[in-house]
Amino acid sequence: MTTKQITVVGLDADDTLWHSEVYFERTQRRFDELVGRYVSADVDVHAALTAVERRNLGRYGYGIKGFTLSMIECAIEVTEGAIGVEELGQVLAAGRAMLDHPVDLLPGVDDAITQLAAAGYRMVIVTKGDLHHQEMKVMASGLAGRVERIEIVAEKDVATYERVVASMGVEPARFAMVGNSVKSDVLPVLELGGHAVHIPYHITWEAEHADHDGTVPTLTTIADLPAWLAAQE
Amino acid sequence: MTTKQITVVGLDADDTLWHSEVYFERTQRRFDELVGRYVSADVDVHAALTAVERRNLGRYGYGIKGFTLSMIECAIEVTEGAIGVEELGQVLAAGRAMLDHPVDLLPGVDDAITQLAAAGYRMVIVTKGDLHHQEMKVMASGLAGRVERIEIVAEKDVATYERVVASMGVEPARFAMVGNSVKSDVLPVLELGGHAVHIPYHITWEAEHADHDGTVPTLTTIADLPAWLAAQE
Repeated sequence: MTTKQITVVGLDADDTLWHSEVYFERTQRRFDELVGRYVSADVDVHAALTAVERRNLGRYGYGIKGFTLSMIECAIEVTEGAIGVEELGQVLAAGRAMLDHPVDLLPGVDDAITQLAAAGYRMVIVTKGDLHHQEMKVMASGLAGRVERIEIVAEKDVATYERVVASMGVEPARFAMVGNSVKSDVLPVLELGGHAVHIPYHITWEAEHADHDGTVPTLTTIADLPAWLAAQE
Repeated sequence: MTTKQITVVGLDADDTLWHSEVYFERTQRRFDELVGRYVSADVDVHAALTAVERRNLGRYGYGIKGFTLSMIECAIEVTEGAIGVEELGQVLAAGRAMLDHPVDLLPGVDDAITQLAAAGYRMVIVTKGDLHHQEMKVMASGLAGRVERIEIVAEKDVATYERVVASMGVEPARFAMVGNSVKSDVLPVLELGGHAVHIPYHITWEAEHADHDGTVPTLTTIADLPAWLAAQE
Protein backbone atom coordinates (compact mmCIF):
# COMPACT_ATOMS: atom_id res chain seq x y z
CA MET A 1 0.00 0.00 0.00
CA THR A 2 1.39 3.38 -1.01
CA THR A 3 0.70 6.72 0.63
CA LYS A 4 -1.17 9.12 -1.57
CA GLN A 5 1.34 11.62 -2.92
CA ILE A 6 -0.98 14.55 -3.57
CA THR A 7 -3.18 15.38 -0.58
CA VAL A 8 -4.10 19.03 -1.18
CA VAL A 9 -5.72 20.41 -4.33
CA GLY A 10 -5.61 24.13 -5.08
CA LEU A 11 -8.44 25.40 -7.24
CA ASP A 12 -8.31 28.63 -9.20
CA ALA A 13 -11.73 30.29 -9.29
CA ASP A 14 -12.40 32.73 -12.17
CA ASP A 15 -12.74 30.74 -15.42
CA THR A 16 -11.84 27.49 -13.63
CA LEU A 17 -14.78 27.09 -11.23
CA TRP A 18 -17.07 29.73 -12.72
CA HIS A 19 -17.37 32.03 -15.72
CA SER A 20 -15.69 35.43 -15.47
CA GLU A 21 -13.79 36.55 -18.56
CA VAL A 22 -16.88 36.14 -20.72
CA TYR A 23 -18.53 39.02 -18.82
CA PHE A 24 -15.48 41.23 -19.28
CA GLU A 25 -15.56 40.48 -23.03
CA ARG A 26 -19.26 41.19 -23.26
CA THR A 27 -18.90 44.49 -21.42
CA GLN A 28 -15.88 45.44 -23.49
CA ARG A 29 -17.83 44.84 -26.72
CA ARG A 30 -20.59 47.18 -25.50
CA PHE A 31 -17.93 49.70 -24.49
CA ASP A 32 -16.30 49.53 -27.95
CA GLU A 33 -19.68 50.17 -29.56
CA LEU A 34 -20.65 52.99 -27.19
CA VAL A 35 -17.33 54.84 -27.42
CA GLY A 36 -16.83 53.99 -31.08
CA ARG A 37 -19.62 56.42 -32.02
CA TYR A 38 -17.48 59.33 -30.79
CA VAL A 39 -14.19 58.52 -32.52
CA SER A 40 -13.05 58.33 -36.14
CA ALA A 41 -13.02 54.92 -37.80
CA ASP A 42 -9.25 54.52 -37.55
CA VAL A 43 -9.22 54.64 -33.72
CA ASP A 44 -8.95 51.21 -32.11
CA VAL A 45 -11.05 51.61 -28.94
CA HIS A 46 -10.30 48.09 -27.82
CA ALA A 47 -6.53 48.64 -28.00
CA ALA A 48 -6.90 51.98 -26.22
CA LEU A 49 -8.76 50.34 -23.32
CA THR A 50 -6.14 47.60 -23.05
CA ALA A 51 -3.45 50.30 -22.86
CA VAL A 52 -5.30 52.19 -20.10
CA GLU A 53 -5.83 48.94 -18.18
CA ARG A 54 -2.14 48.10 -18.36
CA ARG A 55 -1.18 51.61 -17.28
CA ASN A 56 -3.45 51.30 -14.23
CA LEU A 57 -2.70 47.69 -13.27
CA GLY A 58 -0.06 48.58 -10.68
CA ARG A 59 -2.46 51.10 -9.14
CA TYR A 60 -5.80 49.29 -9.38
CA GLY A 61 -4.81 45.62 -9.33
CA TYR A 62 -7.26 43.07 -10.72
CA GLY A 63 -11.01 43.18 -10.72
CA ILE A 64 -14.14 44.83 -11.98
CA LYS A 65 -13.87 48.11 -10.06
CA GLY A 66 -10.48 48.90 -11.59
CA PHE A 67 -11.75 47.77 -14.99
CA THR A 68 -14.73 50.14 -14.71
CA LEU A 69 -12.51 53.06 -13.69
CA SER A 70 -10.22 52.30 -16.65
CA MET A 71 -13.20 52.21 -19.03
CA ILE A 72 -14.34 55.66 -17.86
CA GLU A 73 -10.81 57.05 -18.11
CA CYS A 74 -10.36 55.58 -21.59
CA ALA A 75 -13.77 56.83 -22.77
CA ILE A 76 -12.90 60.41 -21.81
CA GLU A 77 -9.36 60.17 -23.19
CA VAL A 78 -9.99 58.47 -26.52
CA THR A 79 -12.95 60.73 -27.37
CA GLU A 80 -11.03 63.80 -26.16
CA GLY A 81 -13.95 64.61 -23.88
CA ALA A 82 -16.59 64.29 -26.60
CA ILE A 83 -18.32 61.37 -24.91
CA GLY A 84 -21.49 62.36 -23.05
CA VAL A 85 -22.09 62.16 -19.31
CA GLU A 86 -25.04 59.88 -20.03
CA GLU A 87 -22.74 57.39 -21.79
CA LEU A 88 -20.32 57.49 -18.85
CA GLY A 89 -23.27 56.70 -16.61
CA GLN A 90 -23.94 53.67 -18.83
CA VAL A 91 -20.33 52.50 -18.45
CA LEU A 92 -20.68 52.83 -14.68
CA ALA A 93 -23.92 50.84 -14.77
CA ALA A 94 -22.24 48.13 -16.87
CA GLY A 95 -19.58 47.76 -14.15
CA ARG A 96 -22.24 47.49 -11.45
CA ALA A 97 -24.10 44.88 -13.51
CA MET A 98 -20.89 42.80 -13.77
CA LEU A 99 -20.46 42.90 -9.99
CA ASP A 100 -24.10 41.97 -9.47
CA HIS A 101 -24.05 39.09 -11.98
CA PRO A 102 -24.89 35.70 -10.45
CA VAL A 103 -22.12 33.11 -10.25
CA ASP A 104 -22.34 30.50 -13.02
CA LEU A 105 -20.38 27.36 -12.22
CA LEU A 106 -18.62 25.80 -15.20
CA PRO A 107 -19.87 22.39 -16.36
CA GLY A 108 -18.50 19.49 -14.31
CA VAL A 109 -17.32 21.61 -11.35
CA ASP A 110 -19.93 20.53 -8.86
CA ASP A 111 -19.39 16.84 -9.64
CA ALA A 112 -15.58 17.09 -9.68
CA ILE A 113 -15.56 18.69 -6.21
CA THR A 114 -17.88 16.00 -4.88
CA GLN A 115 -15.54 13.31 -6.27
CA LEU A 116 -12.40 14.98 -4.87
CA ALA A 117 -14.00 15.26 -1.44
CA ALA A 118 -15.04 11.59 -1.58
CA ALA A 119 -11.49 10.63 -2.53
CA GLY A 120 -10.21 12.42 0.58
CA TYR A 121 -8.45 15.39 -1.02
CA ARG A 122 -8.26 18.56 1.04
CA MET A 123 -9.17 21.58 -1.13
CA VAL A 124 -8.24 25.25 -1.11
CA ILE A 125 -9.54 27.90 -3.49
CA VAL A 126 -6.65 30.16 -4.55
CA THR A 127 -7.94 33.18 -6.38
CA LYS A 128 -6.54 36.52 -7.44
CA GLY A 129 -8.39 39.75 -7.57
CA ASP A 130 -10.70 41.95 -5.64
CA LEU A 131 -11.13 40.71 -2.06
CA HIS A 132 -14.71 41.84 -1.58
CA HIS A 133 -15.99 40.62 -4.95
CA GLN A 134 -14.15 37.29 -4.75
CA GLU A 135 -15.61 36.66 -1.28
CA MET A 136 -19.08 37.49 -2.58
CA LYS A 137 -18.60 35.05 -5.47
CA VAL A 138 -17.29 32.24 -3.26
CA MET A 139 -20.34 32.66 -1.00
CA ALA A 140 -22.74 32.78 -3.95
CA SER A 141 -21.11 29.74 -5.59
CA GLY A 142 -22.21 27.37 -2.83
CA LEU A 143 -18.63 26.06 -2.69
CA ALA A 144 -17.50 27.88 0.47
CA GLY A 145 -18.48 25.05 2.82
CA ARG A 146 -17.01 22.37 0.56
CA VAL A 147 -13.37 23.51 0.63
CA GLU A 148 -11.06 23.84 3.62
CA ARG A 149 -9.74 27.34 2.92
CA ILE A 150 -10.22 30.27 0.60
CA GLU A 151 -7.09 32.26 -0.21
CA ILE A 152 -7.68 35.53 -2.03
CA VAL A 153 -4.29 36.82 -3.09
CA ALA A 154 -3.01 39.94 -4.85
CA GLU A 155 -0.55 38.10 -7.11
CA LYS A 156 -0.02 34.43 -7.93
CA ASP A 157 3.73 34.02 -7.80
CA VAL A 158 6.07 31.46 -6.24
CA ALA A 159 6.16 33.31 -2.88
CA THR A 160 2.35 33.36 -2.71
CA TYR A 161 2.07 29.62 -3.40
CA GLU A 162 4.81 28.91 -0.86
CA ARG A 163 2.72 30.72 1.77
CA VAL A 164 -0.53 29.01 0.72
CA VAL A 165 1.00 25.53 0.70
CA ALA A 166 2.61 26.17 4.11
CA SER A 167 -0.74 27.37 5.49
CA MET A 168 -2.19 23.98 4.49
CA GLY A 169 0.63 22.31 6.45
CA VAL A 170 2.06 20.23 3.58
CA GLU A 171 5.18 20.08 1.43
CA PRO A 172 4.85 21.41 -2.15
CA ALA A 173 5.16 17.82 -3.47
CA ARG A 174 1.79 17.04 -1.83
CA PHE A 175 0.07 19.98 -3.53
CA ALA A 176 -1.54 20.15 -6.98
CA MET A 177 -2.89 23.38 -8.45
CA VAL A 178 -5.60 23.49 -11.11
CA GLY A 179 -6.42 26.51 -13.20
CA ASN A 180 -6.97 28.16 -16.54
CA SER A 181 -3.83 30.31 -16.52
CA VAL A 182 -0.47 28.73 -17.34
CA LYS A 183 1.22 31.89 -16.07
CA SER A 184 -0.60 32.16 -12.74
CA ASP A 185 -1.78 28.65 -11.91
CA VAL A 186 0.80 26.33 -13.43
CA LEU A 187 4.33 27.72 -13.87
CA PRO A 188 4.88 29.16 -10.34
CA VAL A 189 3.59 25.95 -8.72
CA LEU A 190 5.87 23.77 -10.85
CA GLU A 191 8.78 26.07 -9.95
CA LEU A 192 7.95 25.58 -6.26
CA GLY A 193 8.13 21.79 -6.69
CA GLY A 194 4.40 21.18 -6.67
CA HIS A 195 2.08 19.64 -9.23
CA ALA A 196 -0.10 21.67 -11.59
CA VAL A 197 -2.53 21.07 -14.40
CA HIS A 198 -3.88 23.53 -16.92
CA ILE A 199 -7.57 23.51 -17.83
CA PRO A 200 -7.92 26.15 -20.57
CA TYR A 201 -10.96 28.40 -20.70
CA HIS A 202 -12.13 29.44 -24.15
CA ILE A 203 -10.97 33.04 -23.56
CA THR A 204 -7.69 34.08 -21.96
CA TRP A 205 -7.22 37.66 -20.76
CA GLU A 206 -4.28 39.29 -22.51
CA ALA A 207 -2.35 39.90 -19.27
CA GLU A 208 -2.46 36.16 -18.54
CA HIS A 209 -0.77 34.96 -21.72
CA ALA A 210 2.44 33.07 -20.94
CA ASP A 211 5.17 31.66 -23.10
CA HIS A 212 5.66 27.99 -22.45
CA ASP A 213 6.94 25.06 -24.43
CA GLY A 214 3.62 23.24 -24.72
CA THR A 215 4.62 20.46 -22.32
CA VAL A 216 2.43 21.71 -19.49
CA PRO A 217 -0.06 19.05 -18.29
CA THR A 218 -3.46 19.96 -19.72
CA LEU A 219 -7.02 18.74 -19.30
CA THR A 220 -9.98 19.58 -21.51
CA THR A 221 -12.43 19.71 -18.63
CA ILE A 222 -12.42 19.66 -14.83
CA ALA A 223 -14.41 16.41 -15.13
CA ASP A 224 -11.09 14.74 -15.92
CA LEU A 225 -9.37 16.10 -12.80
CA PRO A 226 -10.13 13.24 -10.36
CA ALA A 227 -8.66 10.69 -12.80
CA TRP A 228 -5.61 12.89 -13.47
CA LEU A 229 -4.91 13.25 -9.74
CA ALA A 230 -5.27 9.51 -9.21
CA ALA A 231 -2.81 8.91 -12.06
CA GLN A 232 -0.16 11.03 -10.32
CA GLU A 233 0.12 8.48 -7.45
CA MET B 1 7.60 34.36 37.63
CA THR B 2 4.41 34.67 35.62
CA THR B 3 3.86 33.77 32.00
CA LYS B 4 3.05 36.72 29.81
CA GLN B 5 -0.69 36.67 29.20
CA ILE B 6 -0.80 38.60 25.92
CA THR B 7 1.64 37.26 23.35
CA VAL B 8 0.14 38.41 20.05
CA VAL B 9 -0.75 41.99 19.14
CA GLY B 10 -3.11 42.73 16.26
CA LEU B 11 -2.62 46.13 14.66
CA ASP B 12 -5.26 47.87 12.58
CA ALA B 13 -3.65 49.82 9.73
CA ASP B 14 -5.68 52.73 8.26
CA ASP B 15 -5.77 55.57 10.82
CA THR B 16 -3.97 53.44 13.41
CA LEU B 17 -0.57 52.93 11.76
CA TRP B 18 -0.90 55.50 8.98
CA HIS B 19 -3.18 58.32 7.85
CA SER B 20 -6.08 57.36 5.60
CA GLU B 21 -9.41 59.03 6.41
CA VAL B 22 -7.85 62.47 6.11
CA TYR B 23 -7.33 61.85 2.36
CA PHE B 24 -10.93 60.74 1.94
CA GLU B 25 -12.09 63.91 3.69
CA ARG B 26 -9.84 66.13 1.59
CA THR B 27 -11.06 64.51 -1.63
CA GLN B 28 -14.64 64.72 -0.50
CA ARG B 29 -14.28 68.46 0.20
CA ARG B 30 -12.97 68.98 -3.34
CA PHE B 31 -15.82 66.86 -4.66
CA ASP B 32 -18.41 68.90 -2.75
CA GLU B 33 -16.96 72.08 -4.22
CA LEU B 34 -16.71 70.72 -7.79
CA VAL B 35 -20.21 69.24 -7.85
CA GLY B 36 -21.70 72.05 -5.76
CA ARG B 37 -21.36 74.42 -8.73
CA TYR B 38 -23.93 72.38 -10.67
CA VAL B 39 -26.66 72.08 -8.06
CA SER B 40 -28.94 74.54 -6.29
CA ALA B 41 -27.90 75.77 -2.85
CA ASP B 42 -30.37 73.54 -1.00
CA VAL B 43 -28.78 70.30 -2.28
CA ASP B 44 -26.46 68.64 0.25
CA VAL B 45 -23.78 67.08 -1.98
CA HIS B 46 -22.00 65.57 1.01
CA ALA B 47 -25.12 63.77 2.19
CA ALA B 48 -25.84 62.60 -1.37
CA LEU B 49 -22.38 61.04 -1.65
CA THR B 50 -22.75 59.31 1.70
CA ALA B 51 -26.06 57.87 0.50
CA VAL B 52 -24.52 56.57 -2.76
CA GLU B 53 -21.59 55.07 -0.82
CA ARG B 54 -23.95 53.27 1.54
CA ARG B 55 -26.03 51.99 -1.37
CA ASN B 56 -22.91 50.59 -3.04
CA LEU B 57 -21.14 49.22 0.05
CA GLY B 58 -22.44 45.67 -0.39
CA ARG B 59 -21.33 45.74 -4.02
CA TYR B 60 -18.01 47.62 -3.85
CA GLY B 61 -16.79 46.88 -0.32
CA TYR B 62 -14.25 49.24 1.23
CA GLY B 63 -11.55 51.23 -0.47
CA ILE B 64 -10.68 54.04 -2.82
CA LYS B 65 -11.78 52.40 -6.08
CA GLY B 66 -15.33 51.94 -4.82
CA PHE B 67 -15.26 55.46 -3.34
CA THR B 68 -14.21 56.89 -6.72
CA LEU B 69 -16.94 54.99 -8.56
CA SER B 70 -19.49 56.25 -6.02
CA MET B 71 -18.27 59.84 -6.47
CA ILE B 72 -18.76 59.61 -10.25
CA GLU B 73 -22.18 58.02 -9.85
CA CYS B 74 -23.22 60.67 -7.32
CA ALA B 75 -21.90 63.52 -9.48
CA ILE B 76 -24.03 62.41 -12.44
CA GLU B 77 -27.07 61.69 -10.29
CA VAL B 78 -27.15 64.78 -8.08
CA THR B 79 -26.54 67.17 -11.00
CA GLU B 80 -29.05 65.26 -13.17
CA GLY B 81 -26.36 64.89 -15.81
CA ALA B 82 -25.41 68.59 -15.81
CA ILE B 83 -21.86 67.93 -14.61
CA GLY B 84 -19.26 68.06 -17.36
CA VAL B 85 -17.13 65.22 -18.64
CA GLU B 86 -14.06 67.25 -17.73
CA GLU B 87 -15.17 67.43 -14.09
CA LEU B 88 -15.75 63.67 -14.07
CA GLY B 89 -12.20 63.29 -15.35
CA GLN B 90 -11.06 65.39 -12.38
CA VAL B 91 -12.94 63.12 -9.96
CA LEU B 92 -11.24 60.10 -11.57
CA ALA B 93 -7.85 61.80 -11.23
CA ALA B 94 -8.56 62.57 -7.55
CA GLY B 95 -9.15 58.86 -6.96
CA ARG B 96 -5.89 57.96 -8.69
CA ALA B 97 -4.03 60.56 -6.63
CA MET B 98 -5.40 59.01 -3.42
CA LEU B 99 -4.14 55.58 -4.50
CA ASP B 100 -0.75 57.01 -5.43
CA HIS B 101 -0.36 58.96 -2.18
CA PRO B 102 2.69 57.97 -0.14
CA VAL B 103 2.10 56.22 3.18
CA ASP B 104 2.45 58.57 6.17
CA LEU B 105 3.00 56.73 9.45
CA LEU B 106 1.25 58.26 12.44
CA PRO B 107 3.46 59.76 15.16
CA GLY B 108 4.87 57.16 17.55
CA VAL B 109 4.14 54.13 15.35
CA ASP B 110 7.71 53.33 14.39
CA ASP B 111 8.92 53.54 17.97
CA ALA B 112 5.97 51.58 19.40
CA ILE B 113 6.59 48.70 16.99
CA THR B 114 10.28 48.67 17.87
CA GLN B 115 9.38 48.49 21.56
CA LEU B 116 6.78 45.74 21.07
CA ALA B 117 9.29 43.67 19.09
CA ALA B 118 11.94 44.18 21.80
CA ALA B 119 9.42 43.06 24.43
CA GLY B 120 8.87 39.83 22.48
CA TYR B 121 5.32 40.41 21.25
CA ARG B 122 4.38 38.71 17.97
CA MET B 123 2.54 41.16 15.70
CA VAL B 124 -0.07 40.80 12.97
CA ILE B 125 -1.53 43.63 10.91
CA VAL B 126 -5.28 43.10 10.53
CA THR B 127 -6.72 45.48 7.99
CA LYS B 128 -9.94 45.78 6.09
CA GLY B 129 -10.33 47.04 2.59
CA ASP B 130 -8.98 46.71 -0.89
CA LEU B 131 -6.50 43.82 -1.12
CA HIS B 132 -4.25 45.36 -3.74
CA HIS B 133 -4.11 48.83 -2.21
CA GLN B 134 -3.62 47.54 1.34
CA GLU B 135 -0.72 45.33 0.17
CA MET B 136 0.85 48.31 -1.61
CA LYS B 137 0.53 50.40 1.56
CA VAL B 138 1.98 47.71 3.82
CA MET B 139 4.96 47.42 1.46
CA ALA B 140 5.41 51.19 1.24
CA SER B 141 5.12 51.59 5.04
CA GLY B 142 8.34 49.70 5.73
CA LEU B 143 6.47 47.65 8.34
CA ALA B 144 6.02 44.46 6.29
CA GLY B 145 9.23 42.85 7.55
CA ARG B 146 8.60 43.88 11.15
CA VAL B 147 5.37 41.96 11.73
CA GLU B 148 4.77 38.23 11.50
CA ARG B 149 1.67 38.28 9.30
CA ILE B 150 -0.53 40.64 7.34
CA GLU B 151 -4.21 39.76 7.22
CA ILE B 152 -6.28 41.76 4.76
CA VAL B 153 -9.90 40.93 5.43
CA ALA B 154 -13.23 41.87 3.89
CA GLU B 155 -15.03 42.41 7.20
CA LYS B 156 -13.85 42.66 10.80
CA ASP B 157 -16.33 40.56 12.70
CA VAL B 158 -16.03 37.90 15.40
CA ALA B 159 -15.62 35.09 12.83
CA THR B 160 -12.79 36.96 11.11
CA TYR B 161 -10.91 37.52 14.37
CA GLU B 162 -11.47 33.89 15.35
CA ARG B 163 -9.76 32.83 12.12
CA VAL B 164 -6.91 35.36 12.50
CA VAL B 165 -6.21 34.41 16.12
CA ALA B 166 -6.28 30.70 15.20
CA SER B 167 -3.86 31.36 12.33
CA MET B 168 -1.43 32.80 14.89
CA GLY B 169 -1.78 29.59 16.90
CA VAL B 170 -2.97 31.18 20.17
CA GLU B 171 -6.10 31.36 22.31
CA PRO B 172 -8.10 34.64 22.16
CA ALA B 173 -7.00 35.41 25.74
CA ARG B 174 -3.42 35.77 24.44
CA PHE B 175 -4.44 38.25 21.75
CA ALA B 176 -4.81 42.03 21.98
CA MET B 177 -6.15 44.15 19.11
CA VAL B 178 -5.36 47.84 18.69
CA GLY B 179 -7.25 50.16 16.41
CA ASN B 180 -9.14 53.37 15.82
CA SER B 181 -12.56 51.79 15.33
CA VAL B 182 -14.55 50.64 18.36
CA LYS B 183 -16.91 48.82 16.00
CA SER B 184 -14.28 46.96 13.96
CA ASP B 185 -11.23 46.72 16.19
CA VAL B 186 -12.54 46.55 19.73
CA LEU B 187 -16.05 45.13 20.20
CA PRO B 188 -15.71 41.91 18.11
CA VAL B 189 -12.37 41.07 19.79
CA LEU B 190 -13.82 41.57 23.29
CA GLU B 191 -16.77 39.39 22.28
CA LEU B 192 -14.33 36.66 21.22
CA GLY B 193 -12.66 36.78 24.64
CA GLY B 194 -9.57 38.70 23.56
CA HIS B 195 -8.18 42.03 24.67
CA ALA B 196 -8.64 45.24 22.75
CA VAL B 197 -7.76 48.89 23.07
CA HIS B 198 -9.14 51.86 21.20
CA ILE B 199 -6.81 54.59 19.91
CA PRO B 200 -9.10 57.20 18.37
CA TYR B 201 -8.10 59.03 15.22
CA HIS B 202 -9.29 62.60 14.87
CA ILE B 203 -11.77 61.63 12.15
CA THR B 204 -14.04 58.58 12.17
CA TRP B 205 -15.74 57.47 8.97
CA GLU B 206 -19.52 57.50 9.38
CA ALA B 207 -19.88 53.77 8.67
CA GLU B 208 -17.51 53.01 11.56
CA HIS B 209 -19.48 54.78 14.29
CA ALA B 210 -20.52 52.37 17.02
CA ASP B 211 -22.70 52.66 20.05
CA HIS B 212 -20.84 51.72 23.18
CA ASP B 213 -21.12 52.57 26.83
CA GLY B 214 -17.84 54.47 27.04
CA THR B 215 -16.07 51.82 29.11
CA VAL B 216 -13.89 50.64 26.23
CA PRO B 217 -10.16 50.80 27.05
CA THR B 218 -8.77 53.84 25.25
CA LEU B 219 -5.31 55.30 24.65
CA THR B 220 -4.54 58.79 23.37
CA THR B 221 -1.58 57.65 21.30
CA ILE B 222 0.08 54.42 20.19
CA ALA B 223 3.12 55.55 22.16
CA ASP B 224 1.23 54.41 25.27
CA LEU B 225 0.59 50.92 23.88
CA PRO B 226 3.69 49.12 25.23
CA ALA B 227 2.90 50.29 28.77
CA TRP B 228 -0.77 49.37 28.40
CA LEU B 229 0.13 45.85 27.24
CA ALA B 230 2.59 45.44 30.10
CA ALA B 231 -0.13 46.51 32.56
CA GLN B 232 -2.45 43.72 31.35
CA GLU B 233 -0.08 41.05 32.76
